[in-house]
Amino acid sequence: MERTENATSTNDLLKAPPNTREFTDLAGPEQKIRAQCVEAREAARLLATLPPTRLDEMLDEIATQLEKNAEEIFVANAKDIAAAEETGLNKALIDRLRITEKSLTAMVAGVRHVRTLPQSLGQKMSEWERPNGIKISKVRVPIGVIGIIFESRPNVTIDAAVLCLKTGNATVLRGGKEAIHSNRALIAALQKCASLPKGAVQLIDNTDRALVPFLCRQSDLIDLIIPRGGHSLIEAVVSESRIPVIKHAHGVCSVFVHEKADLAMAEKVVLNAKVQRPGVCNAIETLLIDSAIADTFVPSITAVLTKAGVVIRGDETVRKLVQGDTIRGATEADWTTEYLDLILAVRVVDGLDGALEHLAKYSSHHSDAIITEDTSVAERYLNEVDSATVYWNASTRFTDGWEFGFGAEIGISTDKFHARGPMGLDELTSYKYVIRGTGQVRG
Amino acid sequence: MERTENATSTNDLLKAPPNTREFTDLAGPEQKIRAQCVEAREAARLLATLPPTRLDEMLDEIATQLEKNAEEIFVANAKDIAAAEETGLNKALIDRLRITEKSLTAMVAGVRHVRTLPQSLGQKMSEWERPNGIKISKVRVPIGVIGIIFESRPNVTIDAAVLCLKTGNATVLRGGKEAIHSNRALIAALQKCASLPKGAVQLIDNTDRALVPFLCRQSDLIDLIIPRGGHSLIEAVVSESRIPVIKHAHGVCSVFVHEKADLAMAEKVVLNAKVQRPGVCNAIETLLIDSAIADTFVPSITAVLTKAGVVIRGDETVRKLVQGDTIRGATEADWTTEYLDLILAVRVVDGLDGALEHLAKYSSHHSDAIITEDTSVAERYLNEVDSATVYWNASTRFTDGWEFGFGAEIGISTDKFHARGPMGLDELTSYKYVIRGTGQVRG
Repeated sequence: MERTENATSTNDLLKAPPNTREFTDLAGPEQKIRAQCVEAREAARLLATLPPTRLDEMLDEIATQLEKNAEEIFVANAKDIAAAEETGLNKALIDRLRITEKSLTAMVAGVRHVRTLPQSLGQKMSEWERPNGIKISKVRVPIGVIGIIFESRPNVTIDAAVLCLKTGNATVLRGGKEAIHSNRALIAALQKCASLPKGAVQLIDNTDRALVPFLCRQSDLIDLIIPRGGHSLIEAVVSESRIPVIKHAHGVCSVFVHEKADLAMAEKVVLNAKVQRPGVCNAIETLLIDSAIADTFVPSITAVLTKAGVVIRGDETVRKLVQGDTIRGATEADWTTEYLDLILAVRVVDGLDGALEHLAKYSSHHSDAIITEDTSVAERYLNEVDSATVYWNASTRFTDGWEFGFGAEIGISTDKFHARGPMGLDELTSYKYVIRGTGQVRG
Repeated sequence: MERTENATSTNDLLKAPPNTREFTDLAGPEQKIRAQCVEAREAARLLATLPPTRLDEMLDEIATQLEKNAEEIFVANAKDIAAAEETGLNKALIDRLRITEKSLTAMVAGVRHVRTLPQSLGQKMSEWERPNGIKISKVRVPIGVIGIIFESRPNVTIDAAVLCLKTGNATVLRGGKEAIHSNRALIAALQKCASLPKGAVQLIDNTDRALVPFLCRQSDLIDLIIPRGGHSLIEAVVSESRIPVIKHAHGVCSVFVHEKADLAMAEKVVLNAKVQRPGVCNAIETLLIDSAIADTFVPSITAVLTKAGVVIRGDETVRKLVQGDTIRGATEADWTTEYLDLILAVRVVDGLDGALEHLAKYSSHHSDAIITEDTSVAERYLNEVDSATVYWNASTRFTDGWEFGFGAEIGISTDKFHARGPMGLDELTSYKYVIRGTGQVRG
């Protein structure tokens, strides 16, 4: 019954998330995360009101501060590297963790690149007038607060914060524990920027995995969760989250070589899609070969792949055609496994229909390609394969924000909502309807 | 190691959802729901390949079959009405449940209207060529299988199925238990359509609420869940779902009367927004009055509202200005309650900033309006209020697909993802990137 004061609501918000009653008695790390989310929400309110030029000024200052604080960043990173070497982290992961002069320069250049990208906030996406005279505009606005849960890659820390800032969003970043010192140094540099609203970029610096569900339930403060990482992390986030999630999950991508393929082109595309960079989500894990050309193409392509260091897992037909003893058999699990390695599951299918059945059952709906000279077969494939990106006569490796011409991307969405495929700046925005009237009421 | 046949994968899919291990031993109603989702998934694959004209033919046939089966539909509906009267369901709910000659005619007309709406499936949303010669098109495609969980309103059953069919989606419908006979008769009529692929419209005819979580975990078969209904249903779906959810949740909408408002306009808009149809989500629940005009406007508007049958819940200032004994005090809970009734919470705030603070804290981000003649105040309000629809000098009651000119809508999204505000046909689609090359590989 008391009049509530028009003061800031921070104190109330700190008490407990209204929709997560199990957390009414917050303490320690949970209390701190909640406080960070409250700050991010308040920063988001401010960010949403700023002109886009102000957002770009923040990016300029971030680039400068990263350069100024290089020494601190290298020192912090060295601690992470030493700890990782001590615990025996594998070399590829250590490489992703390491910040070198070169990678810091690239990080800074990345920030300056994002600053140059066209800004679409405030854009009228459409506008019309109704017979009663009300004017409706659909206007591009920030999403609000974005929670990003990601692996131990310090470059992602800055990329994610900067892409979100460019689009007027505050971020709550939860990176991998192996990168914690590096992340603290990077975010400390970023938070020195005078132009940045307090709280706009938050780093959760307690990397206890048990806190992730708590973060994913702050649905009154966070508008979107983007998990990037392995299958188990993404499954955990999807299970626990009460906040909308855009998954950047695994890619079990494929090439189907149709009987009417240009076989030289097929060989070139298959090699590129598998070998050029096997550790990424748009590399292929499955090769489908039309039974009409299996007798000749299976032996030739497997020889080429083997020579390039690729280990083949073949179905029975493949094994018969290349003297099975040299090739391990593919099990059911192989058709859905993202190897991220020089391994390829190879299967012979009965024409286009066989390929379509295989993909309907096993594709992760990321990127799939057909190689054929037959236009009507290609068009049927492009129409019927339900993947974020479908290719005719090109490598699946082009599924990427830069290759699409979007510039930097926050990731590649494997969802069908809001963002599908490469997720650039526009996909980090929402919209609202703004209606201007002269006193109209509904009859 | 065996070669998996290119046969339909139905039998495998029936065994268990791969991502919900807790359901490995399905039996009875769960087995049946799973089987219905498998059928819907197969129908969705087919629907996605059909030309839009074929989808429109289905709608023609549905309209005809509803007319032909009117008698069966009335008989089934009478059973629901009798049961509802016996259990003492309230009159408003019984009215929503009843199918009359007039409402069936309106339902059929609605189907024929959707048939006339422009079809955007297959539309190239954008198209460009990269320097390497690959051609990228962003093409509008169906979402796939949409699960709709809704209240006991038979008209929603047909609306939802038809809007989804128009956009090439299969549906799994789970309506309220009070409408089960009506829904069975409606869906039976619809399933008589020879043009409709088998399984494209599924009705879950076991309305045990305990089965809702199971339905929301079929993430390999259902692409989107749309819950429509009360707060507890929506919270339950959000908690249990492993599938993306677009919430059509409650509207705690407001009008703010600024000191520079045209007070006659303010009175007209407030009355319309509260009284014209109080039971809908875009009616207002909160009236904010600028303290600068409170002395005169609070007594006058509360008198007008009271005369119109509205019960006022006022803050202390309001109660002082209208001799408090006649007005119940507003508690904290009143600022977030969707009454859906002739009740209005009224509060005096300190100018625009006071209104913005109130809305940041309490608005459900559905529809909020300002009444003012001051352009710069209005523009600040429109920019800073984070709601799906923000109004200047018009009633919040226009937040509606028809009023926007979209035609029929599946509901009003209170999410910021994919669809915000009135959700029409375009929002029932996704997109994919189609890439045509000539053998390009990544360097």
